[in-house]
Amino acid sequence: MEVKYRVNEGDRVTFNNAVDFCVGTGRMGLALQEEYMQQLKYVQENIGFSHIRGHGLFCEDVSIYHDFTDREGNRHVEYCFTYLDRIMDRYLELNIRPFLELGFMPKDMASGDQTVFYWKGNVTPPKDYKDWTTLVQTTLRHLMERYGREEVVTWPLEVWNEPNLPGFWKDADMQEYFKLYQVTAAAVKEVDPAFQVGGPAICGVDDERWLRMFLEFVRDNKAPLDFVTRHHYTSYAPKWEGHYGYINLHRPDYAFGVLEKSREIIDSFPEFRGMDIHITEFNTSYIPNAPIHDTNLNAAYVAHMLSRLGDCHASYSYWTFGDVFEEHGVAFTPFSGGFGLVSNGGVPKPTFWTFAFFKQLMGNCVHRSENAVVVKGKDGNYRGCVWNPDGKLTGEELDFEITLPMVQKDYAMIVKTVDEECCNPLKLWHDLGEPATPTKEMFALLKAGAQPKITTERFENVNKELTVKLHLRKNAVVYFELRPATIVGDTGYSYEKALAECVEDPE
Amino acid sequence: MEVKYRVNEGDRVTFNNAVDFCVGTGRMGLALQEEYMQQLKYVQENIGFSHIRGHGLFCEDVSIYHDFTDREGNRHVEYCFTYLDRIMDRYLELNIRPFLELGFMPKDMASGDQTVFYWKGNVTPPKDYKDWTTLVQTTLRHLMERYGREEVVTWPLEVWNEPNLPGFWKDADMQEYFKLYQVTAAAVKEVDPAFQVGGPAICGVDDERWLRMFLEFVRDNKAPLDFVTRHHYTSYAPKWEGHYGYINLHRPDYAFGVLEKSREIIDSFPEFRGMDIHITEFNTSYIPNAPIHDTNLNAAYVAHMLSRLGDCHASYSYWTFGDVFEEHGVAFTPFSGGFGLVSNGGVPKPTFWTFAFFKQLMGNCVHRSENAVVVKGKDGNYRGCVWNPDGKLTGEELDFEITLPMVQKDYAMIVKTVDEECCNPLKLWHDLGEPATPTKEMFALLKAGAQPKITTERFENVNKELTVKLHLRKNAVVYFELRPATIVGDTGYSYEKALAECVEDPE
Amino acid sequence: MEVKYRVNEGDRVTFNNAVDFCVGTGRMGLALQEEYMQQLKYVQENIGFSHIRGHGLFCEDVSIYHDFTDREGNRHVEYCFTYLDRIMDRYLELNIRPFLELGFMPKDMASGDQTVFYWKGNVTPPKDYKDWTTLVQTTLRHLMERYGREEVVTWPLEVWNEPNLPGFWKDADMQEYFKLYQVTAAAVKEVDPAFQVGGPAICGVDDERWLRMFLEFVRDNKAPLDFVTRHHYTSYAPKWEGHYGYINLHRPDYAFGVLEKSREIIDSFPEFRGMDIHITEFNTSYIPNAPIHDTNLNAAYVAHMLSRLGDCHASYSYWTFGDVFEEHGVAFTPFSGGFGLVSNGGVPKPTFWTFAFFKQLMGNCVHRSENAVVVKGKDGNYRGCVWNPDGKLTGEELDFEITLPMVQKDYAMIVKTVDEECCNPLKLWHDLGEPATPTKEMFALLKAGAQPKITTERFENVNKELTVKLHLRKNAVVYFELRPATIVGDTGYSYEKALAECVEDPE
Amino acid sequence: MEVKYRVNEGDRVTFNNAVDFCVGTGRMGLALQEEYMQQLKYVQENIGFSHIRGHGLFCEDVSIYHDFTDREGNRHVEYCFTYLDRIMDRYLELNIRPFLELGFMPKDMASGDQTVFYWKGNVTPPKDYKDWTTLVQTTLRHLMERYGREEVVTWPLEVWNEPNLPGFWKDADMQEYFKLYQVTAAAVKEVDPAFQVGGPAICGVDDERWLRMFLEFVRDNKAPLDFVTRHHYTSYAPKWEGHYGYINLHRPDYAFGVLEKSREIIDSFPEFRGMDIHITEFNTSYIPNAPIHDTNLNAAYVAHMLSRLGDCHASYSYWTFGDVFEEHGVAFTPFSGGFGLVSNGGVPKPTFWTFAFFKQLMGNCVHRSENAVVVKGKDGNYRGCVWNPDGKLTGEELDFEITLPMVQKDYAMIVKTVDEECCNPLKLWHDLGEPATPTKEMFALLKAGAQPKITTERFENVNKELTVKLHLRKNAVVYFELRPATIVGDTGYSYEKALAECVEDPE
Repeated sequence: MEVKYRVNEGDRVTFNNAVDFCVGTGRMGLALQEEYMQQLKYVQENIGFSHIRGHGLFCEDVSIYHDFTDREGNRHVEYCFTYLDRIMDRYLELNIRPFLELGFMPKDMASGDQTVFYWKGNVTPPKDYKDWTTLVQTTLRHLMERYGREEVVTWPLEVWNEPNLPGFWKDADMQEYFKLYQVTAAAVKEVDPAFQVGGPAICGVDDERWLRMFLEFVRDNKAPLDFVTRHHYTSYAPKWEGHYGYINLHRPDYAFGVLEKSREIIDSFPEFRGMDIHITEFNTSYIPNAPIHDTNLNAAYVAHMLSRLGDCHASYSYWTFGDVFEEHGVAFTPFSGGFGLVSNGGVPKPTFWTFAFFKQLMGNCVHRSENAVVVKGKDGNYRGCVWNPDGKLTGEELDFEITLPMVQKDYAMIVKTVDEECCNPLKLWHDLGEPATPTKEMFALLKAGAQPKITTERFENVNKELTVKLHLRKNAVVYFELRPATIVGDTGYSYEKALAECVEDPE
Repeated sequence: MEVKYRVNEGDRVTFNNAVDFCVGTGRMGLALQEEYMQQLKYVQENIGFSHIRGHGLFCEDVSIYHDFTDREGNRHVEYCFTYLDRIMDRYLELNIRPFLELGFMPKDMASGDQTVFYWKGNVTPPKDYKDWTTLVQTTLRHLMERYGREEVVTWPLEVWNEPNLPGFWKDADMQEYFKLYQVTAAAVKEVDPAFQVGGPAICGVDDERWLRMFLEFVRDNKAPLDFVTRHHYTSYAPKWEGHYGYINLHRPDYAFGVLEKSREIIDSFPEFRGMDIHITEFNTSYIPNAPIHDTNLNAAYVAHMLSRLGDCHASYSYWTFGDVFEEHGVAFTPFSGGFGLVSNGGVPKPTFWTFAFFKQLMGNCVHRSENAVVVKGKDGNYRGCVWNPDGKLTGEELDFEITLPMVQKDYAMIVKTVDEECCNPLKLWHDLGEPATPTKEMFALLKAGAQPKITTERFENVNKELTVKLHLRKNAVVYFELRPATIVGDTGYSYEKALAECVEDPE
Repeated sequence: MEVKYRVNEGDRVTFNNAVDFCVGTGRMGLALQEEYMQQLKYVQENIGFSHIRGHGLFCEDVSIYHDFTDREGNRHVEYCFTYLDRIMDRYLELNIRPFLELGFMPKDMASGDQTVFYWKGNVTPPKDYKDWTTLVQTTLRHLMERYGREEVVTWPLEVWNEPNLPGFWKDADMQEYFKLYQVTAAAVKEVDPAFQVGGPAICGVDDERWLRMFLEFVRDNKAPLDFVTRHHYTSYAPKWEGHYGYINLHRPDYAFGVLEKSREIIDSFPEFRGMDIHITEFNTSYIPNAPIHDTNLNAAYVAHMLSRLGDCHASYSYWTFGDVFEEHGVAFTPFSGGFGLVSNGGVPKPTFWTFAFFKQLMGNCVHRSENAVVVKGKDGNYRGCVWNPDGKLTGEELDFEITLPMVQKDYAMIVKTVDEECCNPLKLWHDLGEPATPTKEMFALLKAGAQPKITTERFENVNKELTVKLHLRKNAVVYFELRPATIVGDTGYSYEKALAECVEDPE
Repeated sequence: MEVKYRVNEGDRVTFNNAVDFCVGTGRMGLALQEEYMQQLKYVQENIGFSHIRGHGLFCEDVSIYHDFTDREGNRHVEYCFTYLDRIMDRYLELNIRPFLELGFMPKDMASGDQTVFYWKGNVTPPKDYKDWTTLVQTTLRHLMERYGREEVVTWPLEVWNEPNLPGFWKDADMQEYFKLYQVTAAAVKEVDPAFQVGGPAICGVDDERWLRMFLEFVRDNKAPLDFVTRHHYTSYAPKWEGHYGYINLHRPDYAFGVLEKSREIIDSFPEFRGMDIHITEFNTSYIPNAPIHDTNLNAAYVAHMLSRLGDCHASYSYWTFGDVFEEHGVAFTPFSGGFGLVSNGGVPKPTFWTFAFFKQLMGNCVHRSENAVVVKGKDGNYRGCVWNPDGKLTGEELDFEITLPMVQKDYAMIVKTVDEECCNPLKLWHDLGEPATPTKEMFALLKAGAQPKITTERFENVNKELTVKLHLRKNAVVYFELRPATIVGDTGYSYEKALAECVEDPE
């Protein structure tokens, strides 16, 4: 395919880039792990998200809530913040703060014993809602005392996770969820009205009805609501083989259509028109063992999503930053189709680079199309990302051309390419025999083979405009940057002479 | 060019791989610098040399020798080991030990004031040879006390540097050097006979006469001599422009011919036949501002040298590991044609990878030709290095094929490619405008652009032999490894399905 | 109390110092945590143990064994080594290797659902012993493949933990344990006869009968047995208040008597006479919430134990190195009476230093008494540890004097003191208000306040012998070292003048 | 001596604490050294200065200015910023920025060959003042381009160093200095008027005349002047022995008197009344080999200085932060009386802690006397520093008592003590035999023995006021802090029971 574009001086295109607002993580207790923090550190150093959202704040492994009866038979309600503080300390060290999902139910407080996941999060309502709101309030007050009010009130709060699924909320009981939402939101505002709270954190099952009913409930009951949250996965039900699920992706237009519907529903309520929507989870497949997550196709498909998700949403949080994740148990191999941007063992997957590239796209957007976004930064440099997802196995390559208005004479163009030939750790791992626990040497090789290819080109004596030409193989994601680069030139130095004269004695 | 080779079971070829025995460094005092140690650390982690040799042990910046007269007029001969110990501590931490060059002359002991280099090393004989031998002995005894005799007696000792040049030894006075050699070697053996001592550290000027006379002197005077040392640079005199010298390379056969002559001279003495020769310095150009050092041509040319230098020599020490170097003053830019394997700012140059690749070539050599060395390791894996220097600017590419006997069924081939397109930091820096002091962001980019391209390939159901095919662009250096790699295969995992089935909904 | 001793030239006293052979840890899955590894790193850098032993190798959080039925109804027995390898990699990086306790029972293999601890280790026999031995063998073979046979066969193997308690082994069923022991030991030897295997890992409840019956069983059934293991805690049942248990210590002679009885029983079997006994757990209290563990009394009491435990035992493993430990749930505070040498947050407890001091006591023992051990090292330096446990609250201080034969003229004595006044982090934490989750600033203060006091003294012109005098406050543990230290003396330097002459203008 | 003070609610005392504004360093080229940066890192982590000032910006080892003639005879004036940028990058990483001293003279620009120090800084006027101002401007413009204008214009600029000494400025030629000052200040303002520039950087020799004449010159010639600078050393001429100088200290009142005189002179000019004075160097002795610098007396004497230097001055820069310093050559030992707060090898000297303690004294001062400063911080905590210099060898100890108004019920007092018994690395080093280059083990011991003693005390049920009682041995410097600390108390935890009940079985 060949596409050619031209940008004229002063062109300006809408593009809401919230790529770095939030990222997902498995349950919070996993944040105690060393491997988890190494992956998060790598993500923060190379991409840098502002917020992180995960499940399990109130689960047993974080160990906050305890209903303790001593040997004399006296009951003590106790709160243990040993692990919570350890996790939050590290998050803040890595310059990331929580988008707090309030859930699931502490065992000592639960009304039933239904659980979700290998790690058994209890998904039943509290025996007593008073105990629940006290837990929420005590936790928030503790955090404010430790980290300061100014800091903590900026942490968004979301009530529960996917209550529209019976697996995540007993019987997917809508009225019970509304009750939970109402008392929780009220409790939060009682602690400090500055907290921003939202819900209903639904996924795409019966979601239109849930959203409408939720908004009606909130409106009618005057419950606090600062933003709406939902999830977004773009694949059909998996076909299972052993541990793995192979999926078909939604065609992008279908996928975006679902989201626009949510926007319409919200805007149809005068009270909520224009209210922020946060997609608190998104990815292609919704299962943590879908091989697609590790592919270059995923990277290119997600690039397209990142170019459009900001149109209706305040943010969209990729589920998840890393592969320390145990919802279906411990992964048997480092490329087991986990959600992560980074594999276990610390290898960045192709999709990692999609995020790293979009993170650079800050400034005024001058071009947005089916395959590319280009912005002009405050520093005057152009930065763009181009992608070529091969979602239909046609193998078609892309010749991308864009002509940009320029002001300087000499430029360097930096190009970073991620495609199946130059940055494909899944293939590398497969070629090595799909080792379940690679050695250090193998991991070093995998990491070395998971870096974008870097090339540069010079444009000299540019006359007002410059045409960037890029050739993308299938499933490629390419970043480019144009920056002024006049040769400074040390006395006597000549790059051309270095190449042409330093050669073998001709005789 | 196309070449095809076949290796048969049991083939064995001579190849003395001493690539990691020793590496050069600028004057020892520079080892106090942080940038120096960062470069050395990187070199040690990625290549790993056993020894390091540099000038200036006894110069003012290391500050060992002092002839101090106090305010009462009393004279004190003093030795200050503050800096020497700091340097040696760090060397040993980085698992490298000195190949000690004994020189130059401390100012307080020198008979004249002739100096060499920007940093002014005094190159005159001692006023009193007794003071000199006491200095040598005191230094060795101090090192033995601090680091242990067992350790220190393994450090080879070389007397002075290039006395056959008047710039390095006053008047290139041969008899005076022989005297220096004799008293120094005797002094060393007096400290401990286990020390290995050698000379005459000559470079290629009037070297045949010097070598012959030196050996005659040693023989006739029964001076201790454990090995012979010389230097080896393979270029003609530079053509200067401003700070830089552009050179013509020796044709390889000419260059190796010079070395063979030395070997012949030594072997012509019955007393010295077969004695070890250490090339204590080698590189293409002998000036620290020759742009060739930073090129891919240099990498490919040096690969060829590394394949043959072991034929006549016990070791050969590349001059130098890094670009913290001040013989002609401080470099104005990070790519100023310095000798280093690593540039200032820490960017590995193409030649760095030549060394990293040869370091892997341990085991039985099964193939050695004009363009390649292949070995079979103890683990049974084949490892090879192939190169294609374009010393005549023909631009010719190389198709290299080699058929190897195999014993397993499934193999992975790992290929690492360094050439002008995929691993060429000099071009990247040039394209950025040749910035004199790049920013951190630029250095990160330069480092990312200075890594070999990693690719892999699978060979399944191999039937006794396997043909490796590699295509090398001009000035390429390519490493390959073949290792057994049967697919382990987790339950339900299929790489092929991940590629073929995880695609967009077809309707 | 005042004691005076004299050592004569050539005196030699028995002292088997195995202080660093092994240390305990909570369940192995906790080794995934970052805090755990930070504590272990600190312990290894400052003490340095050779082996580490903990529970839970086969528990769900390490996630090795899986009995998986796929969607088609096919059953797969699977082994996942993702976490095991991650843990072992890190252990070896920290230069420590496992003393492998084989247990508890994977849920998918267990015959019942009885569990132990907050973290629910299953303590029932396998449904099928064949599955169990296959698990053991598969695990060992995997480890040998990854880490090398030579390495792995040196890891001692212990079958189960405290089967003489019904909480740890269903019904404390002796015959069932013997069966488990027999098949496991045989399975291990089948993998490699070089493995060393032992049991019965009993604690002090009905232990004499268990030990005798076990040895008879092994003898009669010719089961492999390379060493005997047992546990050793020196306190009576705790008095509980809330989360904490306050205990009374055993008088030392009573405690050592118990151990001698085990030795006698073993030696009464001709087949087992002199067989190694490993105490695979010891401490004062056997509960993880006994405030005594954090006190200076514990440090001084343990010092005495370390001086004698080597008399009958090949090793003795302090339970545990750190406070990442969840048997009774997550600790609410950093000084919650955990077993660890290091508290959560990384503060070394007084007992940490007892181990650090004993680690130095290598060489020939020249003195051993109720309150001290002194050795002469290979380097000729004397090193000693002196202690003064106030187990009866008398508050008595100790004046310790020992006269040692010396050979040099000038010595420096280095003294490191740990007592309630100078190195008492528990008091510091209490004085700060017993904060449940101290801030970084508080932890820095706690660590600074948990270091031994360092003092030195010079002895000049020593005439053949020298008397060391130490004053110990209650619950003190003191380390001293005597090393030759002649003043080198730089030209003009005088310490005395620095003190006496650099003062204010007297006019 | 016994002193008792009382602070009443609302008491407020003048105290200008500029302890952390600036610190000195040897010549700038030393900042390339690894040891230098390690010491600076330690200082920044534990104290944290805002600025750093040293000599030698324009000297050969920083290598900025070059007058290069190529082989064709063409002259090139060149600027090399390789090293300058490396140094500034690291300074900014360590969160410190330069207080730029403009000097000395580049060799290629100097009118004479007079030099100062072992490292030979040229101290003659420029051959051509135009070259000099171009150098200054080019350097500033380069820094602004690299680090941003906003950053760089905050770096104070000082013209030359101690021109009133003939060793630092040829013939101490006053008129020539005024010329230098005038053209330099004008050149700086031409680059950016926001730069702050000052002088005359004089030391205490003929200083009153110099200051008056300088101010008259500036006034009469309308030269820019933003602040006045001078140096301040409080000792008489040293008595030399070998390498070392033993000094007598000024009595404090005498020393402060000198400074007040400068203030008076400046204030006597209506144009300059109240102008900032920066003491750009101060210490006790002015030689880098005065053993006093390493003593506890120095720490206590400097504490007194820090309590008063802010009275007349905007800042006062201790000369120097560390002992990488070569004015008189390389130090033979780590305790050679260097100026540094940290010794070579990284041992903090007693005076280091004086600075660390004063750094805490931010807030409202409530007490200032001959021996103490106490402040009340924004957080309500009291923080104080008390000292007891034994400048007359009387050995007198100090009982210090202060009664403070309090508002809470329960407090913890934290006390950090530095005195000759508990934090005296010089004695420790001496006792070890004054080793010239201590081993790693010795350095670890020296560092451990160079930490303040930490103790705490609880005050419960405080009734409106509280009396702090401290006993100081001679040459002690003590820090204390009072902070609210109510016992939180976990269920069942009792510190008293831990001490009283966890003891040996009484029977």
